[in-house]
Amino acid sequence: MKKVTTIAGDGVGKEVMEAGLTILESLDLNYDFIESKAGFECFQNCGTTIPEETIKNAKKSAATLFGAITSTPSEKSPIITLRKELDVFANLRPIKTFEGVNSLFNNIDFLIIRENTEGLYSQIESFEKEEENKKNSKITKTIAKRVITKNASTKICEFAYKTAIKNNRKKITCVHKENILKKTDGIFKESFYKVAEKYSAKHPDIKANDYYIDATAMYLITKPQEFDIIVTSNLYGDILSDEGAGLVGGLGLSPSANIGDKNGLFEPVHGSAPDIEGKGLANPIAMILSISMMLEFLKEDFYSKQINKAVENVLKSKKIATPDLGGNSKTSDVTMAIKKELESI
Amino acid sequence: MKKVTTIAGDGVGKEVMEAGLTILESLDLNYDFIESKAGFECFQNCGTTIPEETIKNAKKSAATLFGAITSTPSEKSPIITLRKELDVFANLRPIKTFEGVNSLFNNIDFLIIRENTEGLYSQIESFEKEEENKKNSKITKTIAKRVITKNASTKICEFAYKTAIKNNRKKITCVHKENILKKTDGIFKESFYKVAEKYSAKHPDIKANDYYIDATAMYLITKPQEFDIIVTSNLYGDILSDEGAGLVGGLGLSPSANIGDKNGLFEPVHGSAPDIEGKGLANPIAMILSISMMLEFLKEDFYSKQINKAVENVLKSKKIATPDLGGNSKTSDVTMAIKKELESI
Ligand SMILES: CC(C)[C@H](C(=O)O)[C@@H](O)C(=O)O
Ligand SMILES: CC(C)[C@H](C(=O)O)[C@@H](O)C(=O)O
Repeated sequence: MKKVTTIAGDGVGKEVMEAGLTILESLDLNYDFIESKAGFECFQNCGTTIPEETIKNAKKSAATLFGAITSTPSEKSPIITLRKELDVFANLRPIKTFEGVNSLFNNIDFLIIRENTEGLYSQIESFEKEEENKKNSKITKTIAKRVITKNASTKICEFAYKTAIKNNRKKITCVHKENILKKTDGIFKESFYKVAEKYSAKHPDIKANDYYIDATAMYLITKPQEFDIIVTSNLYGDILSDEGAGLVGGLGLSPSANIGDKNGLFEPVHGSAPDIEGKGLANPIAMILSISMMLEFLKEDFYSKQINKAVENVLKSKKIATPDLGGNSKTSDVTMAIKKELESI
Repeated sequence: MKKVTTIAGDGVGKEVMEAGLTILESLDLNYDFIESKAGFECFQNCGTTIPEETIKNAKKSAATLFGAITSTPSEKSPIITLRKELDVFANLRPIKTFEGVNSLFNNIDFLIIRENTEGLYSQIESFEKEEENKKNSKITKTIAKRVITKNASTKICEFAYKTAIKNNRKKITCVHKENILKKTDGIFKESFYKVAEKYSAKHPDIKANDYYIDATAMYLITKPQEFDIIVTSNLYGDILSDEGAGLVGGLGLSPSANIGDKNGLFEPVHGSAPDIEGKGLANPIAMILSISMMLEFLKEDFYSKQINKAVENVLKSKKIATPDLGGNSKTSDVTMAIKKELESI
């Protein structure tokens, strides 16, 4: 039987994982779910935020499902470690409005494809030797290296084109800051247009354009319906995907997929939310939509689509919603409603 | 007589500069306005995007007013050169809703204070020697150095506190990504809280908090009224200020001030807008509000406030507005309306 590693993590991570497993177990699927540890509690119990065993399990699994963790200031982030170890180079974050959800806009439906291995997430930082400035006072200087390679840039842009073709999306926007970062973002933009050129003959219907990151942060508000696929480097994708979540009703509805040549890692974009932990109020939908993305990755297209449909129906009915969406339902109410909907469609 | 250097630049930069000068000349002020060149046209005529003379003029002036320029891909950006040469370490960008302007929100009024000298704008980039990866193929690797010093971080946070005290603002939010950039953003956040600690005894009414940059990009949409002053590093400030402009009606209303120990450089946040160039349709308000910020810097508080009031009144009346605000007035109509308002209040 194929294996799926599940890492609940901390806080509401556990609560939404429970919800997710309820949904998964209600489907006619053949997977072994292997529970593994990571996060703050794990650190307190075993001295590491992510044990070797968890990484091993994830590597051997067909996919990994991640809840959320509370960060430990002194330690490296387990989710960053996992992304690296699994070499999941593409981070996909759909931004989509749902009928029945109060949001500032309608008809938003785009996909952010974030390069997931380099940029400012290379985590090469240093303290420089203290220099003396003109006034003879010491200067404490820190440097972070932002690494951008032609390889990784080309790979993520190729991935964006393949995704566009597969999902029938018609426009890919490359986001960068080439006017300042002429070399690093220069190579990203150049790689993008080379890939675009390559695909243009066979897929002339897919448009390519590019914007600066600052302009994009504005356009997401002034013309969000214009976007279809955004492809961008690591930190820009991190920023834009949270902004995008804000556009469509918050992190309670934002799933994500981290995809590599071999592995897949799926997680709601939200964190462990200590403020609502233990109250059973977390919105399970980001997790359940992440499961839908996982099932698509596992080629279980039927259930992947069923889940999307069930979530849409529950949201549209407006009867059951957690507090982040203005309702007063519990995590378990929403989960049961989605489960019931899955049985009836 | 004190000098003010004016750099109109390209495209609508010229049009809004003309509007700005119309307003300035209508006031009872004693300044010499010295026209200087920079930008794309300047590059075509004299082979440089910013002649030495322009920099000299700016350095000798009490303040510099900048329009907008069209960028020249091969050359360094003149506005970046000016910011560096004038050592204007603080970039101030107010984000404010105006009565009479259609926007997604009401009652937004915050100020972004952007560190203006380092971070990813240090412009230290390199191509690394091509390495061979496992598969023996060459890897083209580029690196940008993100430099953050304790000095510059402390200086901008001090500036934020002084600005809060002067403008009666009650909360300062430090924005960073310390969970990933533990050293560089670590030192920024640490410097912030040291400064906060220093001011807390005398100014216990000013609250200090901090958010991650990605969360902030979301909060600007989900709770924009919560912000008062944001202090952050260079690129984060660039991104958040464009997002902020999107919240309150676009770049046509977004002024900025670049402030140093000696110099001040004032510019609308918008660019040269080639799409509407020459049509007389550019919104002059971002420029006119930048002039108000310049006059405050020059201690001409009376006229600075008068201009703000006049702009507010014209916007409130909803009679005259350029196309970016949904109207069909010309740059000159808006300018004359503001001039007339200035005469009557
Ligand atoms: C928790 C943090 C390390 C992570 C990131 O920066 O990638 C998060 O913000 C995300 O977007 O998944
Ligand atoms: C034109 C560009 C170099 C500039 C910047 O990145 O600072 C602009 O975006 C701004 O915000 O003033």
